[in-house]
Amino acid sequence: MSPNSDIKYTPISSIGEFGLIDLFRDTAVKYSNSQVEHSIGDDAAIIKPSEGRRTVVTTDIQIQGIHFDLSYTSMKHLGHKCAAANLSDIAAMSALPIAAFISLGIHSNVSLEMIQDLFGAMTDEFGRFGCVIAGGDTSGSPVGLVVNITLIGEVEPEREVLRGGAKSGDVICVTGDLGRSHAGLKILQREKNRFVQTGQSAEFSADFSGYDDALMKHLLPEARVTLSRSITEKMKVHSMIDISDGLVSDLLHICKSSGVCATVEEGLIPIDPITRRIADESDEKALDYALIGGEDYEILFTISESDFPKLYSIDGNIRAIGRIEKGDPGVRVARTDGSAQEFDKYPSYQHFSKPRGV
Amino acid sequence: MSPNSDIKYTPISSIGEFGLIDLFRDTAVKYSNSQVEHSIGDDAAIIKPSEGRRTVVTTDIQIQGIHFDLSYTSMKHLGHKCAAANLSDIAAMSALPIAAFISLGIHSNVSLEMIQDLFGAMTDEFGRFGCVIAGGDTSGSPVGLVVNITLIGEVEPEREVLRGGAKSGDVICVTGDLGRSHAGLKILQREKNRFVQTGQSAEFSADFSGYDDALMKHLLPEARVTLSRSITEKMKVHSMIDISDGLVSDLLHICKSSGVCATVEEGLIPIDPITRRIADESDEKALDYALIGGEDYEILFTISESDFPKLYSIDGNIRAIGRIEKGDPGVRVARTDGSAQEFDKYPSYQHFSKPRGV
Repeated sequence: MSPNSDIKYTPISSIGEFGLIDLFRDTAVKYSNSQVEHSIGDDAAIIKPSEGRRTVVTTDIQIQGIHFDLSYTSMKHLGHKCAAANLSDIAAMSALPIAAFISLGIHSNVSLEMIQDLFGAMTDEFGRFGCVIAGGDTSGSPVGLVVNITLIGEVEPEREVLRGGAKSGDVICVTGDLGRSHAGLKILQREKNRFVQTGQSAEFSADFSGYDDALMKHLLPEARVTLSRSITEKMKVHSMIDISDGLVSDLLHICKSSGVCATVEEGLIPIDPITRRIADESDEKALDYALIGGEDYEILFTISESDFPKLYSIDGNIRAIGRIEKGDPGVRVARTDGSAQEFDKYPSYQHFSKPRGV
Repeated sequence: MSPNSDIKYTPISSIGEFGLIDLFRDTAVKYSNSQVEHSIGDDAAIIKPSEGRRTVVTTDIQIQGIHFDLSYTSMKHLGHKCAAANLSDIAAMSALPIAAFISLGIHSNVSLEMIQDLFGAMTDEFGRFGCVIAGGDTSGSPVGLVVNITLIGEVEPEREVLRGGAKSGDVICVTGDLGRSHAGLKILQREKNRFVQTGQSAEFSADFSGYDDALMKHLLPEARVTLSRSITEKMKVHSMIDISDGLVSDLLHICKSSGVCATVEEGLIPIDPITRRIADESDEKALDYALIGGEDYEILFTISESDFPKLYSIDGNIRAIGRIEKGDPGVRVARTDGSAQEFDKYPSYQHFSKPRGV
């Protein structure tokens, strides 16, 4: 008998591809959505659309070694985060999620227990928002884990919000503090580097104390599905996007789609004290984390100034950070020292232009 | 000046992730679908569902080294085949395709021109059926190419066909000959092995003459979208699936979902002469190619005997190959010599159970 008989290691090959699909079906049935008429187990899933609504579809691929590092990301964290990233895109359209489709490329060194953790965490995170995993595909993978999620939701046509509707005079708002996810990543990388520098010593102990809020934000981000619906219920939102690439890049997407420029006030950008502390410890600037860090999964949106007071009753964390203006697409950051930083190109990490610091 | 100034090599990094997305948008606009209201370029796409129809969703992941071998698959062939595999799943639900979502994981050794070929072939293959590429995601990939496609279509509820509706007494039908795709794969593998055995000599020339019909079937399969619609227009189809895993596995899916068993007559299984020739040359059995080869992308369906004559007016290639019967889920192949082969487990290639011979 093993020391702890509750803990098992099962190779995926012991149940095969069809066994894995059965397992996913048995896990996914924990939640249901009345619009999903047929889910896992046929050539395709069947969804009944609501009358008068539009179908909203987003898809997102995450590849080990590019988007995540399993040396400091548990499969449960990864499952939660992959789900949250897609929910965040649906939230950015003011839509409600209905059904998710999961494709997994699985290397032979991944155990059944790891995949159960991953799939279980996704199931729960989607389920929290009334959304069910309705299909997917599995494959072997020669190297590393690949996760692709397609998420389908719905929105009333009058509540759709695209990137292209920002108007001169709009107030630019954000639903929470920025840069904290990147600060969390910094801590994970710092402790991983310390571990590597000790020669991966068995005595090594990572020091995460006091950094919980940053680590939580990076590993377990919260998609603003409910909040975005509350905002579009109360007012006409002109443009909206979620902050996945970083404030400057995502605001630049809005500017390019809308044919406007934007000015953001440094002093108005919400930055948490823990983000400042981590940036200080890393000899970096917390402002850079907020501007180009990415993965905050807050919602960035623009509204008429007259609508701004209506936000007070929705959520105390929503902040106005700047203005939309007439001009060539670009983002201007007005610094507290009176200087300005101008961006007319995407400054953040791009997969094909430079290696990420992960 | 280079010898042929029309041929270029451009690294993906020269245009970056957002440049790639712009390129995809510019390629995809070649086709349109009036239901797709917003496509590439926002957080999500927006589709207007048809009144009274159901939304049908399928997803499929293909990974280099598992599903395809770029040493004998051109990017155009790969793009066509990935699109056809998804269209085939939509056809198996008797649905019409509307919008495709493409995720690509791209290794740095892949050029922009290769991705243009891949994406262009997908665009055209979907476009042929009135379907538009409406979104996607791109990422770097540490090793090899990853292609995930999610395809969304629609079907009238009264024409939906699932795997689970087969009834005792049903005639089992198939839309074309079987095993030819696997025969084509055999030729590609044989010539690749010869090339490797010559030490990859510069003088080597692959011998594909006379094998065109098999190679075409493997590299450029045709999804039976139009045919499947014609069948469900004329009669009530009880169960339907596309043949991707091989006749026995896919028929077993129908049997397990429907709680029935099936008998197939060896003498009725349509096998093309080129399939028999290639099997003979390989010292293998053409019947095995038809039963477990897979990737034929024909449609397998069951109907009442009284409806069978209606098929004559639809397509001369549709064949009756056996019967659904009462009994525990299983497939019985009645051989011409009077013996029988019984299958109650999936015999074909499964990604996690044994390595593929590719």
